[in-house]
Amino acid sequence: MRADWTEEPHAIAPLLAPRSVAIVGASSDPGRIGGRPVHYYRQAGFAGAVYPINPNRDEVQGYRAYPTIDSVPGPIDLAVIAIPAVQVAASIEQCARKGAKAAVVFSAGFAEIGPQGAALQHEVLAVGSRCGVRLLGPNCLGLFNARLGHFATFSSFPESGLPVPGRVGLVTQSGAYGTHVLMQARARRIGVNIWVSTGNEVDLDVAALIEALANDADTDVIACYLEGVRHAPTLLSALGAAHAARKPVILMKVGRSAVGAEAAASHTASLAGSDAVFDAAVRSYGVERVETTERFLDLTYAASRARLPRGNRLGIITISGGAGVLMADAAEAEGLEVPPLPVAAQRQLLAANPLGSPRNPVDVTGQALNNVDLIRQHVAAIVDDTTYDCVVGFFTAWPTVSTLGPKLQAALREGTKGRAERPMALVILAPPEIAQTYEADGFLVFEDPSRAIGALGGMFRLSVRLHAQPRRAAPARAPLAGFLPQRPLSEVEAKQLLSQAGIGVLPERLVGSAEAARDAAATLGCPVAMKIVSSEIAHKTEIGAVVLDVASPEAAAAAFVQLIAALARAAPQARAEGVLVSPMVKDGVEIILAAKNDAIFGPVTMVGIGGIFVEVLKDVVLRVGAVEADEARQMLKELKGYALLAGARGRPAADLDATADAIAAFSAYALANAGRFESMEINPLLVRPRGHGVVALDAWIVPARPCGGQTPNQNDIGRR
Amino acid sequence: MRADWTEEPHAIAPLLAPRSVAIVGASSDPGRIGGRPVHYYRQAGFAGAVYPINPNRDEVQGYRAYPTIDSVPGPIDLAVIAIPAVQVAASIEQCARKGAKAAVVFSAGFAEIGPQGAALQHEVLAVGSRCGVRLLGPNCLGLFNARLGHFATFSSFPESGLPVPGRVGLVTQSGAYGTHVLMQARARRIGVNIWVSTGNEVDLDVAALIEALANDADTDVIACYLEGVRHAPTLLSALGAAHAARKPVILMKVGRSAVGAEAAASHTASLAGSDAVFDAAVRSYGVERVETTERFLDLTYAASRARLPRGNRLGIITISGGAGVLMADAAEAEGLEVPPLPVAAQRQLLAANPLGSPRNPVDVTGQALNNVDLIRQHVAAIVDDTTYDCVVGFFTAWPTVSTLGPKLQAALREGTKGRAERPMALVILAPPEIAQTYEADGFLVFEDPSRAIGALGGMFRLSVRLHAQPRRAAPARAPLAGFLPQRPLSEVEAKQLLSQAGIGVLPERLVGSAEAARDAAATLGCPVAMKIVSSEIAHKTEIGAVVLDVASPEAAAAAFVQLIAALARAAPQARAEGVLVSPMVKDGVEIILAAKNDAIFGPVTMVGIGGIFVEVLKDVVLRVGAVEADEARQMLKELKGYALLAGARGRPAADLDATADAIAAFSAYALANAGRFESMEINPLLVRPRGHGVVALDAWIVPARPCGGQTPNQNDIGRR
Repeated sequence: MRADWTEEPHAIAPLLAPRSVAIVGASSDPGRIGGRPVHYYRQAGFAGAVYPINPNRDEVQGYRAYPTIDSVPGPIDLAVIAIPAVQVAASIEQCARKGAKAAVVFSAGFAEIGPQGAALQHEVLAVGSRCGVRLLGPNCLGLFNARLGHFATFSSFPESGLPVPGRVGLVTQSGAYGTHVLMQARARRIGVNIWVSTGNEVDLDVAALIEALANDADTDVIACYLEGVRHAPTLLSALGAAHAARKPVILMKVGRSAVGAEAAASHTASLAGSDAVFDAAVRSYGVERVETTERFLDLTYAASRARLPRGNRLGIITISGGAGVLMADAAEAEGLEVPPLPVAAQRQLLAANPLGSPRNPVDVTGQALNNVDLIRQHVAAIVDDTTYDCVVGFFTAWPTVSTLGPKLQAALREGTKGRAERPMALVILAPPEIAQTYEADGFLVFEDPSRAIGALGGMFRLSVRLHAQPRRAAPARAPLAGFLPQRPLSEVEAKQLLSQAGIGVLPERLVGSAEAARDAAATLGCPVAMKIVSSEIAHKTEIGAVVLDVASPEAAAAAFVQLIAALARAAPQARAEGVLVSPMVKDGVEIILAAKNDAIFGPVTMVGIGGIFVEVLKDVVLRVGAVEADEARQMLKELKGYALLAGARGRPAADLDATADAIAAFSAYALANAGRFESMEINPLLVRPRGHGVVALDAWIVPARPCGGQTPNQNDIGRR
Repeated sequence: MRADWTEEPHAIAPLLAPRSVAIVGASSDPGRIGGRPVHYYRQAGFAGAVYPINPNRDEVQGYRAYPTIDSVPGPIDLAVIAIPAVQVAASIEQCARKGAKAAVVFSAGFAEIGPQGAALQHEVLAVGSRCGVRLLGPNCLGLFNARLGHFATFSSFPESGLPVPGRVGLVTQSGAYGTHVLMQARARRIGVNIWVSTGNEVDLDVAALIEALANDADTDVIACYLEGVRHAPTLLSALGAAHAARKPVILMKVGRSAVGAEAAASHTASLAGSDAVFDAAVRSYGVERVETTERFLDLTYAASRARLPRGNRLGIITISGGAGVLMADAAEAEGLEVPPLPVAAQRQLLAANPLGSPRNPVDVTGQALNNVDLIRQHVAAIVDDTTYDCVVGFFTAWPTVSTLGPKLQAALREGTKGRAERPMALVILAPPEIAQTYEADGFLVFEDPSRAIGALGGMFRLSVRLHAQPRRAAPARAPLAGFLPQRPLSEVEAKQLLSQAGIGVLPERLVGSAEAARDAAATLGCPVAMKIVSSEIAHKTEIGAVVLDVASPEAAAAAFVQLIAALARAAPQARAEGVLVSPMVKDGVEIILAAKNDAIFGPVTMVGIGGIFVEVLKDVVLRVGAVEADEARQMLKELKGYALLAGARGRPAADLDATADAIAAFSAYALANAGRFESMEINPLLVRPRGHGVVALDAWIVPARPCGGQTPNQNDIGRR
């Protein structure tokens, strides 16, 4: 059945399901860029109209050809453009006159080659917008919709055959890597129905395609390969749409490493943003992010062929004890539990197979060679029990042994009859024609036990996320404290602003003389802490610019002199605003509360436990946008060092309510000032025992730079 | 050339390279256990004598058969035994009379089925020892030495063909999993020359086989699959022999998880020991431990086909920017660096290919489709440079494209000519017959980019370890402090023993009355710390059994009363030895120093940073046996929280010398008392600022239990 996009008019339906396609720059040579889509349309039996545009030929690969776009007899839904970059804009305009609502631009020579190409790209976008033509590319390998025989691509993939039928939608920013994935997906019998490569993304980006697939009736699973994000809100909204449609999204984003991120930025000409922020932003949707192509394929395979498990309890059946142990190890690493079979069932199995191990892993042992029915009995015991949410079986090359294979298959089929409600994976070594027969019986098939468990682990995480509500970030509000001034701010000013924003600070005095220090100490009450205030000194403790536990007003006067001397010694050029005198507060846990303005996702709030936890262990938790107090508390719980706040063995519990309120207030202030700051940090925020609140002991705010100057990298002489 | 073991008489040479083999229980049916080895010897063309023993036949599968062992005309080097368990011992004795020096026992029904079988197994071992016959098995799938056509196995593997020639030796405890690995190894063109499955290991264990392969002239790479260790010293000695022979060992040990370890113990009937201890024990040899079969195969493949890299600097060449980014990410995770090409080389490449990215990853882009010579130029620029220790190239399915493949291959061949000194991996999608041609040119071939990088990372780590000296544990010495008494010890006694062993403690007084507490405080000098001493209270802080900072002798008297009251309230049944009064020491970092008596590896010393680091982050470092001070310092450096000791930002550096000395003394004391304790712990050991030493603030020693009683698991009704 062909989708009729005129009845359900999504903006990019003409791209995914056109009734007529014009190929501008069509070639008679099926090996050339302009010849390949013509060849593929013919080969796949596209039912719509195909209009090759070629001024020199009446016929192209069996289709009637037209010298110009204007000479095409009927309306054009989609234009496929394979001509030099400078001619693209005009061609889009002509196609629009014939009714085109979308264009796939294969042509390269745009933003990826530098400023001149960027100008051309801008022109193409302007024409598209004016004429109402949505654009895929430029510099992309196109797309296909296999069910319709719609192959608007010059990828070499369809040359070696059509994709297997299925309900997977695949979006890749890279056409070359997309082709690589498609080749392997077909070998794995993964049914990729729609593939789109997005190239330079002048108009339609990965987010737009994810949203389209979320709305596509023929797509159940969305797989996406990503190098960079153009526009965060549309990506998150697309992931929200997929979540609402209960479609799992398997997401591979490269650029985690420093070198990788730099290469990705260079490759896609996109702003990098932080990978950790990306992670935090997408995590609350029905998304599983994977790091390798194998995981990408494995999970797409599993999600497209089996139901998601209801929980994480795994039953393991094996004919090799070693493989059972290996799979139990892998299960733990994936967050899957391996609970024992109920004792009654164990007893029954042991009676049938005294040399087996009926616990879980359930080891039938080589005894099954003599009596294959043991496998039926053992599998039935596992799947009949309500203990397990998913099942894996290890049978190595047995399916290929002529005397054994058919018996094994019958045993598995009978043992699992009527139990298709949970994912069941088999680890077998078998050629595709045999593996397929097990798939037809409802099993997932893997060659490697760890990969089978990895896929089941991913399915479990997808299940959990698809059944939870996606996170809703708190809306931006005008800040209580007023907007951030756009000039350098001192520590004292920063604390004042944060105090107005609702974060606890100490009563403090900035003093400029020993006498004033004495008076301040007397007023505040001793002991006091004293430190130099100077925006030019980063690590104050190291140069002796901090004195703690000053016991008397006289000692405060002496400490003032000492601090000024220390500064003069360590940093003779540095200017100081003065010395800050504050009451000494010690009892509590120091945390760090910071906000960055991510290039892609905007204000991001980070919380970590002070000192070694952040510095050495990188134990931090991030959220994009503003968080409410509930979510702030959840952030604290996600810290590895949370026990330090919660009051582990003998420690007093910290004031978590006040901490959560402070995080919420801080993140709201950051969001309200989006674009007006580069970073803000409270370090440390002292979290006192329950009931005693929090105080910001030090803080700084770096306003946004007037223009985003980048530090040139002297090792890199290439374009950015 | 055939190995002549009579000239270089290793104990198990008759097993690996016999001149004559008797098959006891030989069958005419090539599908039966006793028929398979006969079939394989014939198929592989074994040059030695094969004597099937079968009382009912004159001929078995083309070989002359003999009714009894005694009737065999010539001497027997090796006996292959495939008869019921009860007949095995007698049969070994008969073979010994004909000169047999080794026997492979296929027969099952021994220790793996319970006490009766264990008794039979013991008898078999006794006969073997008496007659000088080394035993493989029982309950094993046997072995092969492919170069000699020696296939003393009933594994189904050789049925589907012989292994490809090569210089890999594979040892697997599990025969079924070994067969699974062999099938995949052959598909990957990994040349497994020798395979041994060790089964019940009544005599020859994995360690003995690793040692034999270390000494085998036809083996370059040793791959080993392990479920449990029989005897730690021989395993470590075998790994030492492999290290001395500069042969990398790729080691897969399952049983990392709790369920997995339990299943492994049940499956192999071996003591479990701690997986973390195993890790610590093998890490200093030329060993790379892997967690998945894929990694096992990938690294064995790479190590058997390429030289080890000299360092960790990776050059990446790609025709897809996305794949380049992905590989840079993977490289970081593997500890490989991706340094840029020198600027001059970048300039040259950019001149040849203005649309490429010459930095590293070096992205030739799709431009290479138009001009394949660009690939030669780019590859040459990478391999001609001294920057890189290893190289990876991504060319997806190009080798299979008829117009492109031969050109690509020529470009790679020319570009790398004369540069075979470093490992070079290609990521290509190609059928075996094409992939092989690239291997013949000296390239490693992978389908997945992450796996290619993973293998190069493993090769780098193997290289580092093979070029370092293996660790030598300090020898056991009689303890300074005398041997541990075999009875429960109080905190006070434990500290006294540790003090005699050379570890700093505080001057302390155990008091039994408020008056005595007052006197002790006066003598020691205030402030003091006071705590209940009772072996029945675990977490003293939580029940108020500790009072710190007691300011005066009077306060000490009051604190005594308070402590006794707290104990009475919290644990009315608990008996207290008294109250310990000690000087208050605060400035320092608390660490935990502990020793356990591992079931396999004996005394193991553990160090961790106190509190959250150990409790929450499991940040601990282990060493088997005793360590010298140098190594103790290295242990401290391996802690994630090391910065806390080393004096990060503003913190004073701790007394690392004194800490290292204390660890050395503690581990020596533990080793000297091997078998006499279950666990010892100093927690906390306060590490004071540099020059101020360490003090054990609390300590306990649990002596060995008289007999190793195991807690029964009520969920497990199976055999152990």
